[in-house]
Amino acid sequence: MLRPITINPKLDLVLQRDVDVSPELVWDAWTKPEQLKIWFTPRPWTVSHCELDVRPGGRCITTMRSPEGQEFPNVGCYLEVVSQRRLTFTDALLGDYRPTGKGYMTATIEIEPRGGGTRYTATVLHASEADRESHEAMGFAQGWGTALEQLVKMVKGVKF
Amino acid sequence: MLRPITINPKLDLVLQRDVDVSPELVWDAWTKPEQLKIWFTPRPWTVSHCELDVRPGGRCITTMRSPEGQEFPNVGCYLEVVSQRRLTFTDALLGDYRPTGKGYMTATIEIEPRGGGTRYTATVLHASEADRESHEAMGFAQGWGTALEQLVKMVKGVKF
Repeated sequence: MLRPITINPKLDLVLQRDVDVSPELVWDAWTKPEQLKIWFTPRPWTVSHCELDVRPGGRCITTMRSPEGQEFPNVGCYLEVVSQRRLTFTDALLGDYRPTGKGYMTATIEIEPRGGGTRYTATVLHASEADRESHEAMGFAQGWGTALEQLVKMVKGVKF
Repeated sequence: MLRPITINPKLDLVLQRDVDVSPELVWDAWTKPEQLKIWFTPRPWTVSHCELDVRPGGRCITTMRSPEGQEFPNVGCYLEVVSQRRLTFTDALLGDYRPTGKGYMTATIEIEPRGGGTRYTATVLHASEADRESHEAMGFAQGWGTALEQLVKMVKGVKF
């Protein structure tokens, strides 16, 4: 049985959408580096480097590049890996669960079959209300929403 | 197969000892709050409160009380739970993997049958060399060693 996810509206952010691509293809988009590089950052940002060791305790690295060419490496650790259903990861840990000494968020991507497509739910837990507010102000809903739209376009072979 | 544990001597601390109590009883001592309260803090410190939700993503709370009566709550999260073999937990996360916003260590307790007893290995990963040094200076080897001796005494019904 999957661990139930409980949110605290003061600390957490949720994006839920139904999309018309299959759970299998959404899972692949999240777990194959060559696919994630294509859709993960809302244009004109890009992903310049991506390594995904998709297992509990495995490291994920995603380096985002700004339109000006500045690079922002993000390193995290997978916590839950349930094939084609759920992926949980955090930036509070590195590979092999080593603490980073800080920690901004833990995200869970839930993928459920819905009609012929997928109900997609991204839940992001923060340490504090200030972190939730800063994430919201950085444009969480638009950013994660645009990334999901790019994921769907990639799967369908539509240019963006 | 169990995840291999790799250490970095600059960042990590290890305590390994063979003890003459069974793996089953060492496991119970780590996972049952009423037992952990007895042995976990080297005397004259005590544990005044303990809650252990022993599952990946489950919260552990251990409140340590100084001889002067000051209380120090420690909250963490279980990452790996392999019955009678391995327990991994971190203070970088709270229950349900919520980040704490900081994170001092991730500890793995390995329990292996050896003769009639147990080979006990505690591996503690830190975020930085400074954190490893401070843990060493706080008396890691003596503290975790004394706690283990108390665990063995508790299992054998010897007073301490």
